[in-house]
Amino acid sequence: MGKIVTLGEIMLRLSPLGYDRFSQSKEFNAFYGGSEANVSVSLANFGKETSYVTKLPENDIAQCAINELRKYGVDTKDVVRGGERIGIYFSEYGESQRPTKFVFDRKGSSMAEAKREDFNWDKIFEGAEWFHFSGITPALSDECAKITFDAVKAAKKKGLTISIDLNYRETLWNKDRFSKVIRELLEYCDIALGSVEEAQMAMGVPEDEGADCNEILKEFVEKFKLKYATIILRNRFTAEDVDWTAVLYDGKTFYNSKKYDIHVIDNIGGGDAFAASLIYAITSGYSTQDIIEFATAGSCLKYSMIGDANLSTVAEVENLMYGDSTGKEKR
Amino acid sequence: MGKIVTLGEIMLRLSPLGYDRFSQSKEFNAFYGGSEANVSVSLANFGKETSYVTKLPENDIAQCAINELRKYGVDTKDVVRGGERIGIYFSEYGESQRPTKFVFDRKGSSMAEAKREDFNWDKIFEGAEWFHFSGITPALSDECAKITFDAVKAAKKKGLTISIDLNYRETLWNKDRFSKVIRELLEYCDIALGSVEEAQMAMGVPEDEGADCNEILKEFVEKFKLKYATIILRNRFTAEDVDWTAVLYDGKTFYNSKKYDIHVIDNIGGGDAFAASLIYAITSGYSTQDIIEFATAGSCLKYSMIGDANLSTVAEVENLMYGDSTGKEKR
Amino acid sequence: MGKIVTLGEIMLRLSPLGYDRFSQSKEFNAFYGGSEANVSVSLANFGKETSYVTKLPENDIAQCAINELRKYGVDTKDVVRGGERIGIYFSEYGESQRPTKFVFDRKGSSMAEAKREDFNWDKIFEGAEWFHFSGITPALSDECAKITFDAVKAAKKKGLTISIDLNYRETLWNKDRFSKVIRELLEYCDIALGSVEEAQMAMGVPEDEGADCNEILKEFVEKFKLKYATIILRNRFTAEDVDWTAVLYDGKTFYNSKKYDIHVIDNIGGGDAFAASLIYAITSGYSTQDIIEFATAGSCLKYSMIGDANLSTVAEVENLMYGDSTGKEKR
Amino acid sequence: MGKIVTLGEIMLRLSPLGYDRFSQSKEFNAFYGGSEANVSVSLANFGKETSYVTKLPENDIAQCAINELRKYGVDTKDVVRGGERIGIYFSEYGESQRPTKFVFDRKGSSMAEAKREDFNWDKIFEGAEWFHFSGITPALSDECAKITFDAVKAAKKKGLTISIDLNYRETLWNKDRFSKVIRELLEYCDIALGSVEEAQMAMGVPEDEGADCNEILKEFVEKFKLKYATIILRNRFTAEDVDWTAVLYDGKTFYNSKKYDIHVIDNIGGGDAFAASLIYAITSGYSTQDIIEFATAGSCLKYSMIGDANLSTVAEVENLMYGDSTGKEKR
Amino acid sequence: MGKIVTLGEIMLRLSPLGYDRFSQSKEFNAFYGGSEANVSVSLANFGKETSYVTKLPENDIAQCAINELRKYGVDTKDVVRGGERIGIYFSEYGESQRPTKFVFDRKGSSMAEAKREDFNWDKIFEGAEWFHFSGITPALSDECAKITFDAVKAAKKKGLTISIDLNYRETLWNKDRFSKVIRELLEYCDIALGSVEEAQMAMGVPEDEGADCNEILKEFVEKFKLKYATIILRNRFTAEDVDWTAVLYDGKTFYNSKKYDIHVIDNIGGGDAFAASLIYAITSGYSTQDIIEFATAGSCLKYSMIGDANLSTVAEVENLMYGDSTGKEKR
Amino acid sequence: MGKIVTLGEIMLRLSPLGYDRFSQSKEFNAFYGGSEANVSVSLANFGKETSYVTKLPENDIAQCAINELRKYGVDTKDVVRGGERIGIYFSEYGESQRPTKFVFDRKGSSMAEAKREDFNWDKIFEGAEWFHFSGITPALSDECAKITFDAVKAAKKKGLTISIDLNYRETLWNKDRFSKVIRELLEYCDIALGSVEEAQMAMGVPEDEGADCNEILKEFVEKFKLKYATIILRNRFTAEDVDWTAVLYDGKTFYNSKKYDIHVIDNIGGGDAFAASLIYAITSGYSTQDIIEFATAGSCLKYSMIGDANLSTVAEVENLMYGDSTGKEKR
Repeated sequence: MGKIVTLGEIMLRLSPLGYDRFSQSKEFNAFYGGSEANVSVSLANFGKETSYVTKLPENDIAQCAINELRKYGVDTKDVVRGGERIGIYFSEYGESQRPTKFVFDRKGSSMAEAKREDFNWDKIFEGAEWFHFSGITPALSDECAKITFDAVKAAKKKGLTISIDLNYRETLWNKDRFSKVIRELLEYCDIALGSVEEAQMAMGVPEDEGADCNEILKEFVEKFKLKYATIILRNRFTAEDVDWTAVLYDGKTFYNSKKYDIHVIDNIGGGDAFAASLIYAITSGYSTQDIIEFATAGSCLKYSMIGDANLSTVAEVENLMYGDSTGKEKR
Repeated sequence: MGKIVTLGEIMLRLSPLGYDRFSQSKEFNAFYGGSEANVSVSLANFGKETSYVTKLPENDIAQCAINELRKYGVDTKDVVRGGERIGIYFSEYGESQRPTKFVFDRKGSSMAEAKREDFNWDKIFEGAEWFHFSGITPALSDECAKITFDAVKAAKKKGLTISIDLNYRETLWNKDRFSKVIRELLEYCDIALGSVEEAQMAMGVPEDEGADCNEILKEFVEKFKLKYATIILRNRFTAEDVDWTAVLYDGKTFYNSKKYDIHVIDNIGGGDAFAASLIYAITSGYSTQDIIEFATAGSCLKYSMIGDANLSTVAEVENLMYGDSTGKEKR
Repeated sequence: MGKIVTLGEIMLRLSPLGYDRFSQSKEFNAFYGGSEANVSVSLANFGKETSYVTKLPENDIAQCAINELRKYGVDTKDVVRGGERIGIYFSEYGESQRPTKFVFDRKGSSMAEAKREDFNWDKIFEGAEWFHFSGITPALSDECAKITFDAVKAAKKKGLTISIDLNYRETLWNKDRFSKVIRELLEYCDIALGSVEEAQMAMGVPEDEGADCNEILKEFVEKFKLKYATIILRNRFTAEDVDWTAVLYDGKTFYNSKKYDIHVIDNIGGGDAFAASLIYAITSGYSTQDIIEFATAGSCLKYSMIGDANLSTVAEVENLMYGDSTGKEKR
Repeated sequence: MGKIVTLGEIMLRLSPLGYDRFSQSKEFNAFYGGSEANVSVSLANFGKETSYVTKLPENDIAQCAINELRKYGVDTKDVVRGGERIGIYFSEYGESQRPTKFVFDRKGSSMAEAKREDFNWDKIFEGAEWFHFSGITPALSDECAKITFDAVKAAKKKGLTISIDLNYRETLWNKDRFSKVIRELLEYCDIALGSVEEAQMAMGVPEDEGADCNEILKEFVEKFKLKYATIILRNRFTAEDVDWTAVLYDGKTFYNSKKYDIHVIDNIGGGDAFAASLIYAITSGYSTQDIIEFATAGSCLKYSMIGDANLSTVAEVENLMYGDSTGKEKR
Repeated sequence: MGKIVTLGEIMLRLSPLGYDRFSQSKEFNAFYGGSEANVSVSLANFGKETSYVTKLPENDIAQCAINELRKYGVDTKDVVRGGERIGIYFSEYGESQRPTKFVFDRKGSSMAEAKREDFNWDKIFEGAEWFHFSGITPALSDECAKITFDAVKAAKKKGLTISIDLNYRETLWNKDRFSKVIRELLEYCDIALGSVEEAQMAMGVPEDEGADCNEILKEFVEKFKLKYATIILRNRFTAEDVDWTAVLYDGKTFYNSKKYDIHVIDNIGGGDAFAASLIYAITSGYSTQDIIEFATAGSCLKYSMIGDANLSTVAEVENLMYGDSTGKEKR
Repeated sequence: MGKIVTLGEIMLRLSPLGYDRFSQSKEFNAFYGGSEANVSVSLANFGKETSYVTKLPENDIAQCAINELRKYGVDTKDVVRGGERIGIYFSEYGESQRPTKFVFDRKGSSMAEAKREDFNWDKIFEGAEWFHFSGITPALSDECAKITFDAVKAAKKKGLTISIDLNYRETLWNKDRFSKVIRELLEYCDIALGSVEEAQMAMGVPEDEGADCNEILKEFVEKFKLKYATIILRNRFTAEDVDWTAVLYDGKTFYNSKKYDIHVIDNIGGGDAFAASLIYAITSGYSTQDIIEFATAGSCLKYSMIGDANLSTVAEVENLMYGDSTGKEKR
C-alpha cells in the first residue's frame, strides 16, 4: 500500500492551563496542529505510511511543529522551509455555557505566503496512494487555492484517491468564494465529508437547517460523482457535552453509525479524527458499515483527548466500535 | 456616569491544585477575593468605573490583593493600609458527593480590626453613583457594622443608589444578630438580593422552605420600600451540578429569568457575579426583563470559571442571554 | 480495641498529568498504593490503629511508599526490607468512552519474590484484632499464596476476625487457580466482599450475569459459613460515570444500601475504600444497616478523590450517609 | 510631581519552563514586556505616577498585556486599541556557555503598523513631567520614527524632561539608519544612557572597543548638550554570570557606581531597570553620586528576578546601595 | 536508647514557585516546618526515635503539618490539638544580591496561645533520653516561656540531656528579654549551639564582631557549666553563596570542623540541621572531632535541599564527612 | 553518506522535579535515554542519518521511548519489539556537595533479555557507514555481549567504521569481565573514547591516577591499532561545577581541545554528547584539531541542557568552538 499525503497549514496552538481564562494564565500549553496535520498524525498512529506537506519557516518554533509530526511517525521530508512565521492561534477551553474561545494570529504565515513553485507534486506523490486536504488549505490565500488545484490535478493524473474535508471557516472564507472554489475542487475528489450546512454551501444551495440529511447527501454525491460522502451530525448541548453520529452514502445505500453521547475534553480536531478514521477504514478493507462505524468511533475517542490529534490505536477504536462504550478498563 | 463603590474584606484564598485534597497538595493556588471585591472586578471587567474600599496591611501579600484588583481595572486608591494581616481561607474543590471544604483563618485581619475613623466617606463617595456591600461586611465586627452604617448614611446623603447582597454566613453571624443588623441596614437600601431563606431571616420571619418565593419577595420589597429585589433560586445536585434561575420584583411585576443547568468549575462567587451583573444591567439601561436575564446569565458564566470573580465581558453575557446556551464556539 | 493488620503489595503508580495520554506526558504523578495498603490508609484516616505488612527493597523509591503509609498514620514497622524492586504500574486516566489504561510492570517485585520465612506472624499479630487481605496477595506467586495461608492460620489461632476482598485480577490469576486457592482461604474468613462474578468464581460455579444477587450472596455466606458477606453492584456508563450500591447479608437478612450516581475522578481504589469503610463500621459498632450504608458512602466518596486511597474522615462519610448527597458546602 | 510617560511596543514573550529548550517544552511561560513598558512598571513599583503609550489590537491577548501593566499601577488609558496583532517573541533561557536564544515574530504588530494620527500628544502629555523612550521605538517602522519625533517635539514644547535609552537592536536597525535617526532624536533629549558601542554609533564614530569610556561619555554629552549621560559597563562571563557597573557624567564630573558580580536569573530587562532607576533617582532628588548608585543597584536586582521588569521597591534598592550586597535576609 | 523530644512551633510556610517574587506567583509551595520540628524530622531520618511536642488547631491544614512529621517517622501522639490557627509565614527565595524575604503571620497561633496545663511533661518524657528546644519557643509568649521552663525542669528531674539552639529572632524578642530568659534556661542545659552574637547576647555581654570566637565559646561553656557548646561560623557572600564551618568546645579542647563553600538552594533550616546532626552524633558515640564534623557536614547538605528539614541519611552525611565533597555520583 | 547505526538499551529515566529529593516529589519527569540512543539523537539533531537498534516491549511506555527518538529524526524501524519491560532508572539531581543519586531498576528488560536471533545485522547495516556502541551494551547480559560481537563482526565485514565509548559502569560489570570483553571488542574498533581509568581497565593495566594521559593514550591506540582515540579529562568540584577538556591521538600527534568551566544543569549524557560530536566531526571532514574542539564544545553544551541528549545544532557548537564562550545572546 502506498502512502497517504496531506497538504495544509500546521499552527502553534497556545492554550491556558486547565480552566484558566486567558487573563488568568501565566503559562500556555503549546500544541502543534492543523486540520490535515491532525489527519496525518492519526493515520500514522493507526500504522499507515503518511507524508505531510506544508511550508514552515527556518526557526526553532517551526522545528517543534516538525518534531511533533515526526514523533508520531509522519514523514516530514516534503515540508518546505522558508517564509517568515508559523501561524499561531490562542484557544481557551470552554466550560458549561461558556464556549471555547479563539484568538487567531495566522496572517503572514509561511504557508499562507507560499508560492506554487515551492511544491514539486510529482516528487511528493511518488509512492502515494491517497491525497487528502480540507477546505482550510485553499482558503489561506489565492495562491494557496492554486497550490491546492496543482495538487489535486497532479494527484488525479497519478491515479490517487482524493478526499476532502469541507471544513468551512468563517474567519477565512466568505460563503460565495467558498462555494465557488470548493465546487471546482470537488470535481477532482472521490470522497468528501462535512456537515449538512457545508454540503449545502459547497453545492451552492441555500443553507436550510430543516433539510433532510439523506437528501442532501444523495444530491451531493450525485452532483460531484463521489465514491462516498459522509455527513457528520452533531448536537451540542454545552461546551463539554455533544452527541455525535454520521451517515455515509456510497451512491446506493445510506449507512448510519452508532451515536455517542460524548463528554468533550478538547473541542479541537473531532472532524479531523473522523477524516483520518474514515481514510484508515477505507484503505484497510473494512465493510461499508464498518467504515462509518470506525470513523465515528475514532472521532468519538478524539474528544476524550487533549490536543489536536486523535492518538487512538486501531485496537482502541475497534474496542469501542465492536465492544462496549462504557469506558470499562481492563486489569 | 459615576463610579460604583463597594466596601468589604478581600482575602487570600489558598486552594489545592486540581482534585487534590488538602493533605495531598504540595502547592496551593492563590486567589484574592471577597464578596464585594468580586463585584468590583466583574463591574470593572464590564467596563464600569469602580472603586473598592477595605483595609489591608502593609506587606507584600496584601499588595498582591491590591495588584489583582488593579489588574482588572478596579481603583484601589481608597484602600486603607494598616493593621496586622490579610484574612486567609483555605478551600478544597468538591467533586460529586464530596462538598467544597473550607478552613477559615480570617480572625484579626486588618479589615476586621478596622476603625470608623479609617474611612472618610465624603471623599470616598466623590464622583460616585452607587454603593454596594454584602451581609459579610457588617458581620466582621461590631465596629465593621458601624462602618457599614457610616457608609450607607453617607451614601444616602449623597443620593447614591444603595444595594445589598444579603449573603448570610453562619460562621460569622448568629441569626438574631443578622436579622437585627441587616434589617436596619435595609432601611437605607434601594436594591437587595439573596435567597429565600436570607430574605426570611432579614425580615425576621421564620425560615420556611415551603414558602412561596414570590410572596416572600413581595413582602420583602414592601417591608423595606425597595426599588427592586431579586431572589436567586438554586438547586444543587452534586458538588459540580446546580441549576440556577432568579426572579426580580420591582413592586409591580415579577420577572423570571431563564434557568440554566450548570456544570460548576468553582463554587465560589456565583452570588457576587449575580450582584455585579444586576448592577451593570440596571446602570446600563436594560429593560427590567433583561436586567434579570443579564444577572442570571452573568452568574451562570461565573460558575464555568476558576477563581472568585466573574471574568466575562458584556458581549459574552449577552451572547448567552440572547443567543444559545450550548457553548458553541466561533472559528 | 486492637489493631487491624493487612498484607499485600504496595506499588508505585505512575500516571500522566491531567488528561494527557502516555505519549503526551513529560511527567508522571507518583502514587503509592495497593489494595490492602489502601485499606490500611483509609482505616488509619478513620482513626483506627493499623499495621501494614509487605516486603519492599532497600531503596529510596520503596522508602517513598513507606513514607506515604506513615504520613496517614499506618504503622510500617512490620514491613520487611529486601529483594530487588518495588512493583510499578502505569495508568492513564480514561475519559468518556475511553477506558482507564494500565501498563503493569510488577514482575520480580520484592513482595512477589518474598519467602514464607520473611514474616513472623506471631509477632506481627501481637495486639491485633483483625486481619484483612485481598485476592491479589495470594495471586502474586505460589509462595505468596503460602504466605497468605500462614497468615490466615496464625490469625485464626489468635482469634482475629479475618476479612477478604475477593479482588479477582485477570492479569494475575487464571480462573481455575483463583477458584481453588480462594475457596481454601475462604474457609478461614469471617467476612468477604466482592462482585457477583467474583463470588461465583470463588464458589466455583459458572459466572452468570443474570443470576440473582441475593441468591448468590446467600449461597456464598452459607458455603463458607461467613459472618457477613457483601456484594457491590456497580453499573458503569462511561469512564467517569458509574452508579454504585451494595448489599450485605448476615446469614439472616439482606441489607441494601443507598445507591449513588457518581462522577468518577479516579477509578482506582473504590473497592478498597469499600472494604476499609466496612471494617471501620463493623469494628465501631454501627447497626447492620448502617454498616452497609457507611461502606457504600465511604467508597462513593473515594471516587471523588485522586489517588489510590480514600482520604475521607468519619465525619465526611457520615455526612453523606445520614445527610444529603448534593455536595453542598458549609461556610 | 507630574507623571512619567513612555512610548514603545509591549510584546508577548513566550519562554520554555525552567531549563527546557524550545523542543523540549510543552508549555511556555507568558510574559508581557518591552523596553519602555518595563521602565513604566519599575517606576510605578517605585511609587511614581506613570503612563504607557502604545498601540495594541482589540483581543484577549493584548488585554493581558494591558492587565499586566495595570497590575503594577501603570496608567493605560492612553493605549490605542486597533491593528492586527501583538508582537511576539520566543526566548529560551541560556545556561553556562549556551546563550539565551530568541525567535522574533513581531512583524505586522499593531504598534509597528501604527499611524501618527493614532496619538494625540497634547492630551497624552497633560500633567506629565518626563518623557522616556528607547532606540527600539523609532526602529519599528518609518512611521514609528515619525511618531517618536512627534512625541519628542510635543514633549519639548511642553517643557518635559526627555530621556533616551539608546538600545540598539541589530535585528531592527542597520547601523547607518540608527546613527542618523538617533542623532536627530538626541537633539531633543536631556538625558541618555547606553553602552560605549551604542554611544559611538549614535555619534556616528567608529566603534572602538579600546576607546576610553570617559572620553566617549564626555564627547557624547557635549555633542548633544545633555544634562546627564550614563554608560553601562558590563562584562559577561557565561549566560548567568555578569559584572555590572556604570558611570554618569553631568558635563563636569564623572561619577562611578559600585560594581556588582551578578548571578543572572533572567537576562532580559537589565538596561530597562537601569533606566527606570535612573529616572526615579533623578526625579526624587538624590545626590548625583546616589543617582548612579541607585541606577546600578536597581538594575543589579533586576537580574535576580524572572520576567522583563524590575519588581524591586525603593527600600530594596536602597538596602543594596547603602547596605551590604550579601543577600542576607531579615527574620 | 530512649527517644529525643523536641518542643516548638510548626508553621505553614508558603513560598512562590521557582524564582517568582510574591507578586508574580499564582501558586505557593506549602512546607510545614519550625526550628524544633526540623530537628525532629532530621533525627527521625537518621533513624532515631523522636517525638515532637506542640499545639495545633483541629483543622485540615494543621493535620497536614502532622502528616508531614509522621511521613518522616516523627511520633506526633503528644501534639496537643486545640486553639485557633496554625502560624503561617510567607517566604520568597532570594537570588544573587536580593535577600530571602519573609512575611510573618504567626500571631494568635495555637502554640503561641498554648497554656501550661496543655502539656503533661511526665507523660511526654516517658522513655525519653534527650530534650531539645530553641530560643524561638520561649519567645512566642510569656506563657510559652513558662511552658519551656516546665519542660526543662521536668527533663532535668528525669535526667534527660538538654540541648538548646539559641536561635535569636529579632521579630520575636527584644535583646534584653532574650538575654534574661535564655540565661535562666541555660542553667538547665547540657549542650548549646549558636552564633558568636547569640552567645554574647545569651551571656548578656555586648555584641562585638571582632571578638575571638574561642574565647567567647570558652566563657560561654564555663558560665553555664555546659558539657559541650558549638559556635557556627558562617560567611554569606550572596543569597546563594555561603561558607560554613563550626567549632566545638568541651571544656577542654576546641574542635574545628572542615569548612564548606556552599551553593544554597534554600536558606531555611541550616542551623536546625546542624542541631539535629550534632545530637545524632553525640547520641551515636562518635568521637568528639567526628561530632563536629558530622554536625557541619549534615548542615552543609541541608543547604542543597529545598524545604525546611535536612533529608540526608547517615550514609550521605558520612560520605561527605569522610569522603570527598565534590558531589561525584555513583553509577 | 551512509547512515550511522548504534546499538544499546534505551531506558525510562524518572527524576523528581526541580530540587526535590525522591521523598519530596509527587511527580517525576520522564526522560527516555541511554548512552547509544543519546548519540543517535545528537547525530540526528546535527543532520546525520541515524538508525537506533534495541529491543523494547510492546507497550505504551516503550512506545514513548520510540516516539522520543523519532521526534528528533532517528530511524527506529530496526527496533525489535518483544520481551517484558523497558528498563527504568530513577535519578535525583545533585546540588552543591550532594551528589546526583541513582536507583536502577533495569533487570529483566527486553534488551537485557534479547536473543542473538532478534537482530538481522545484514539488513540493519544496509546503507550504513558507521557503527557505534558503548561498554554498557555488552554488559547487559552474556547474550548481549554476543549480540555486540555479532554486530561488530558484521560491521567489519561490511567495511563500516566502528567506534566504542568505553563507558565502564560499576553496577553492571566487574572489572575483570569488563577488561576481557572490551579488549576483544576493541580488536574490531577504529575509534575509541573514554577516561584514563577506562583506557587502563580496557588494556588490563592497573588503574593509576598519576599516569600520564598521553602515554596511556598512545599505548591504547597502538595496542588496538585504532585510527583515533580520545581521552576526556574532567575535574569535578561540586555536583554542578566541572571542568572538561579532551585529548585526541591519531597515532602521530596529540590534539588538545580548549577547556571549559561548566555550570552543570544535568550530569547525564556528557560523554554521549562527546561521542556524537566526535562522530559528527569525523564524518563531516573537519580538521583533526577541529574534531577534538567540536567534540569538546558539543559535550560542554550538553551539560547546560536538561535531559539525556545533546540538543545543540551544528551552528551552536561551532559558535562556541570558534567564537566566544561567554553565553552572549544575539538580539
